[in-house]
Amino acid sequence: MLNFSSDYTNGAHPDVLRHLVATNDEVLTTYGSDLYTASAAEKIRRTCGAPAAEIYFLSGGTQTNLTVIAGLLGACAGVIAADTGHIALHEAGAIEYTGHKVLTLPHSQGKLTAEAVEATIGAFYADSNYPHMPYPGMVYLSHPTEYGTLYSKAELEAIAAVCRCYAIPLFLDGARLGYGLASRETDLTLQDIAELCDVFYIGGTKVGALCGEAVVFPRGNSPRHFFTIIKQHGALLAKGRLVGVQFDALFTDDLYLRISRHAIDIAEKLKVILHEKGYRFFMETPTNQQFVILENAHYTALAKKVAVSYWEPYDAHHTVVRFATSWSTTEADLDALRGLL
Amino acid sequence: MLNFSSDYTNGAHPDVLRHLVATNDEVLTTYGSDLYTASAAEKIRRTCGAPAAEIYFLSGGTQTNLTVIAGLLGACAGVIAADTGHIALHEAGAIEYTGHKVLTLPHSQGKLTAEAVEATIGAFYADSNYPHMPYPGMVYLSHPTEYGTLYSKAELEAIAAVCRCYAIPLFLDGARLGYGLASRETDLTLQDIAELCDVFYIGGTKVGALCGEAVVFPRGNSPRHFFTIIKQHGALLAKGRLVGVQFDALFTDDLYLRISRHAIDIAEKLKVILHEKGYRFFMETPTNQQFVILENAHYTALAKKVAVSYWEPYDAHHTVVRFATSWSTTEADLDALRGLL
Amino acid sequence: MLNFSSDYTNGAHPDVLRHLVATNDEVLTTYGSDLYTASAAEKIRRTCGAPAAEIYFLSGGTQTNLTVIAGLLGACAGVIAADTGHIALHEAGAIEYTGHKVLTLPHSQGKLTAEAVEATIGAFYADSNYPHMPYPGMVYLSHPTEYGTLYSKAELEAIAAVCRCYAIPLFLDGARLGYGLASRETDLTLQDIAELCDVFYIGGTKVGALCGEAVVFPRGNSPRHFFTIIKQHGALLAKGRLVGVQFDALFTDDLYLRISRHAIDIAEKLKVILHEKGYRFFMETPTNQQFVILENAHYTALAKKVAVSYWEPYDAHHTVVRFATSWSTTEADLDALRGLL
Amino acid sequence: MLNFSSDYTNGAHPDVLRHLVATNDEVLTTYGSDLYTASAAEKIRRTCGAPAAEIYFLSGGTQTNLTVIAGLLGACAGVIAADTGHIALHEAGAIEYTGHKVLTLPHSQGKLTAEAVEATIGAFYADSNYPHMPYPGMVYLSHPTEYGTLYSKAELEAIAAVCRCYAIPLFLDGARLGYGLASRETDLTLQDIAELCDVFYIGGTKVGALCGEAVVFPRGNSPRHFFTIIKQHGALLAKGRLVGVQFDALFTDDLYLRISRHAIDIAEKLKVILHEKGYRFFMETPTNQQFVILENAHYTALAKKVAVSYWEPYDAHHTVVRFATSWSTTEADLDALRGLL
Repeated sequence: MLNFSSDYTNGAHPDVLRHLVATNDEVLTTYGSDLYTASAAEKIRRTCGAPAAEIYFLSGGTQTNLTVIAGLLGACAGVIAADTGHIALHEAGAIEYTGHKVLTLPHSQGKLTAEAVEATIGAFYADSNYPHMPYPGMVYLSHPTEYGTLYSKAELEAIAAVCRCYAIPLFLDGARLGYGLASRETDLTLQDIAELCDVFYIGGTKVGALCGEAVVFPRGNSPRHFFTIIKQHGALLAKGRLVGVQFDALFTDDLYLRISRHAIDIAEKLKVILHEKGYRFFMETPTNQQFVILENAHYTALAKKVAVSYWEPYDAHHTVVRFATSWSTTEADLDALRGLL
Repeated sequence: MLNFSSDYTNGAHPDVLRHLVATNDEVLTTYGSDLYTASAAEKIRRTCGAPAAEIYFLSGGTQTNLTVIAGLLGACAGVIAADTGHIALHEAGAIEYTGHKVLTLPHSQGKLTAEAVEATIGAFYADSNYPHMPYPGMVYLSHPTEYGTLYSKAELEAIAAVCRCYAIPLFLDGARLGYGLASRETDLTLQDIAELCDVFYIGGTKVGALCGEAVVFPRGNSPRHFFTIIKQHGALLAKGRLVGVQFDALFTDDLYLRISRHAIDIAEKLKVILHEKGYRFFMETPTNQQFVILENAHYTALAKKVAVSYWEPYDAHHTVVRFATSWSTTEADLDALRGLL
Repeated sequence: MLNFSSDYTNGAHPDVLRHLVATNDEVLTTYGSDLYTASAAEKIRRTCGAPAAEIYFLSGGTQTNLTVIAGLLGACAGVIAADTGHIALHEAGAIEYTGHKVLTLPHSQGKLTAEAVEATIGAFYADSNYPHMPYPGMVYLSHPTEYGTLYSKAELEAIAAVCRCYAIPLFLDGARLGYGLASRETDLTLQDIAELCDVFYIGGTKVGALCGEAVVFPRGNSPRHFFTIIKQHGALLAKGRLVGVQFDALFTDDLYLRISRHAIDIAEKLKVILHEKGYRFFMETPTNQQFVILENAHYTALAKKVAVSYWEPYDAHHTVVRFATSWSTTEADLDALRGLL
Repeated sequence: MLNFSSDYTNGAHPDVLRHLVATNDEVLTTYGSDLYTASAAEKIRRTCGAPAAEIYFLSGGTQTNLTVIAGLLGACAGVIAADTGHIALHEAGAIEYTGHKVLTLPHSQGKLTAEAVEATIGAFYADSNYPHMPYPGMVYLSHPTEYGTLYSKAELEAIAAVCRCYAIPLFLDGARLGYGLASRETDLTLQDIAELCDVFYIGGTKVGALCGEAVVFPRGNSPRHFFTIIKQHGALLAKGRLVGVQFDALFTDDLYLRISRHAIDIAEKLKVILHEKGYRFFMETPTNQQFVILENAHYTALAKKVAVSYWEPYDAHHTVVRFATSWSTTEADLDALRGLL
């Protein structure tokens, strides 16, 4: 069946797989001490323009979020996030399990605004009861967001300025970072992100890897004992090569961006088709995810022919549905889709 | 200075203190195994009409909430609460520290409604992503609420019915339970509460004790190892007598209700005075807390003469302020207040 | 029945109770912001010779241990303790509940030695696997220990030196600190302790209070947000006066030391009696607890006449039993005991 | 360099890799709902003779241990383990991070004995202080152990009987299970393990996979919400196929056992060589790990020619060193080793 359901329904990009196969029989040291992991880290440092960056490779998004957040938050701290943020909604309470509250703000197209963050922190310290409440100890944002939207450079700078003002870290969840970097509408580069954020991760699982996320502390500013923290959260792979080799491939010859650009090109054409066919957008985005509103009967009928993602109810009679593209979506898929819509 | 700031600014009710003094030199066994603690528990069982009830005595409200919630919630469960609920706001993230998410619903005058609870749980299980989210594993409500409002018997029955339907416990935080029971507008008795809730606590700290809350599992339904759970949370007093003796006094000759009725009588007269003086109510309640809206300058001036509680900003120019009464508020205090307003 | 079972079977020392009664009707601010709490803190600062000390009042020992340890330990840190340490044995896993491992060393008469601590930390960092293990992030010791023994000044200095060398805090659990300070065999003063430890607590519950422990950060070195940390652990009393007033009494006119000296005087006479009667000591200590070995039948017979504490099995036929003295033990009790042994 | 350092220094077994490559381009559903994961689970069920078994696939050993233990232990429960158990030593405090104490017993060649387990649980409940201590809520054992040793069927039956008697689960950590099953000296089958244990895992990472462990609840007895628990611990792979496909290969045509038997065959020959060369064994085992005692200078010299694992100091002049074999160790490696020793 035609598949636009998500960007992680296929295996690895062929070049990633090829590197795994090519290195499979080599004897390598363990727990991320191998040469491919070192090479991947070095390539990421260079791409980020952050020569002092510390890079850690973990295997999945929720794992990365909980490990980074638990590792950075002090006692009694909470983490500010949009109410649509992944950590607020779909991580099974993983952040709370580490003992910290997610302090949610209403989202604006999936995003936080610097104004809202500043107002929240300001109101917190203005409330005489604040020592009875978890204090805002980090700002978490997703880029692209869960709705496929993007922060502009100015928006990210503004949020980063608020964080610096209150001396709290800014954490950017880049589960789909490639699609943000490759978007035709972004003015935010990886170097900007490395400069503005205190920690971020470059998502692999949804951008061509079998698994794996690269956590970047751009100024060598990882918390003490972070290796041990990763281990304590069960996030340390014995065969660290599994993720190291994949990222080594992803950051060779710009593969990470090439994968992302392909998905964006396809997504742009997808948007044209959806418009042609008169689809109503819930969120038309500059990245690889597009959200449309379908009548329920229409959704049911469509779902028999094309795999898409149920997103959320729109109203009693309509449903929000997501189309996603990835490295594996082809022009032929688009043609087939055009015929089916 | 005249004091209407809260119901815990004085020490113990004289009868409670007297019992502490009278028993002070007795040699008693420790950790709550003493005869006064047993006597207090028995009196509470009788008052609740719950002969199989298990009673545990802890020392404060946040401690009680976190111990009960952590003791009852299964892995990955969250607790449903009003967004104004004490556990959601003013407990420093204590519930999250136990690893559980507080699932907040918009309050209605500080209360949850059965409809909203049911809709929330229903929507949860209707969402195909639900295994990626913490499941609703308990309903928490305060009675009286943080705004001094009360559930009617019908409202509590309706919520209890939803809980039974989904087989999740209903926990009632009775930090100020006495004022609810003694209210002139309630139709809810302690026996009703014991019948409808799976666990609740009878607050002592704010109703005449120096410290202490009595947790009631009305059908002998405490979780296994609950004594050890209390200890693990640092909530077990070596001299358990401290709380046992106080509750023994509070449940002798109806003292708990007499204290509460006194505070209610004073509060009713306070409401009359506030109306006479043209005060604008933010929340006029059937219990011992009354909330009024003051112009900021008025508030500043008043605060020099009467201790009241800052509650929250109303708008840029007004502030919500709380007047509270207790066992120690006198008619003379009311007269003095009338002169000052 | 004659009672030598423990030092917390009576209520408060009369002077402590008197102060509670005398201040009961005063209107005081809450959560430890009252003037008696401030006064108690100031008196403790003076007694410790630590003018910059920060003092927090909590209600019990386990609560204090878990709050201090969780507040001070970084991610992945463990706390070194003797295997007989209270946190290692009888706190229901409270430390582990905060996410930290207790790293136990074999005790030597209930004590740690600087050599053993240093060897442990040294071996830890010498092990190439150390990043896979929780690192030693604090040293915890009890003074007096659970066996009633005491550190000498030289011993404490040596342990403190190891801690400084590895830059980890030294925490002294003083649940029975008074009995250590009043011992005839100690050369360790409160000022020494304030100088050598990074944090310690002065126990009230077992030295004449109804409840309460005073945590001292002698150089104003409490962790950030410690008030909120206390609240988050359920350890913040709404009527903070309850502990503040008691410690205000305990540190007026040397009461804390007078209580302790009385118990020591009685304990010294108790030791003479036990020797006279031919009892075999398991641990003859310089503090208020004495441990003897009884044949099981003897123990059973004795327990019918005198309340003592079961401690542990000695062998199949003998039991270790504890005699404890306190402010409430009298010469008459000793005489009666002499007649019964 | 010749490599005997561990069983996870190579990538995947060729057949495992082949299956990953072959399925890479297929569109599969996510989070373990794909057909290869289902197929792998079904094959494991059949191999275990446990048709009702529930199988979950996680990515690493520590992750699996902490998720299973946190998912199964009740409040205040601890887990009994040998003091050499992986969870007690080399998991960075991961179990404590979930709030539970590891209750260690002295090991006997890396193993627990039923007698010691029974005595420990018995002593626990015989101690009148037991409600002040974490209760034994699970028995954890490794098979093979960290020292490469094995439980006999009788030994495992005896431990299982103790667990049943106290109604606590028996959890077997099978990180290297294959080598246990393929040992020439074992009388314990996978079916026996499925019958005797309440939960166990079949290790993939150390037996030919790139990553992955299969958790088996043999009687459909997984805790409620276990999928969500996995997610909450960050242990749910978005591309669940990564582990599912690998286990599908491992349980096709007996590959798991073939891999293991190969490693055992090589290990048996290795033992002969070590004996021939006069090496002194620290632990001569029936599995794929052999431990010898080397003079420190000898160790240093050897380490320049052969990669082996430092294990622990033996005494001031000797070191315990581990030789491990795996699917990738060849006869040629043995020949080369013979020449070098």
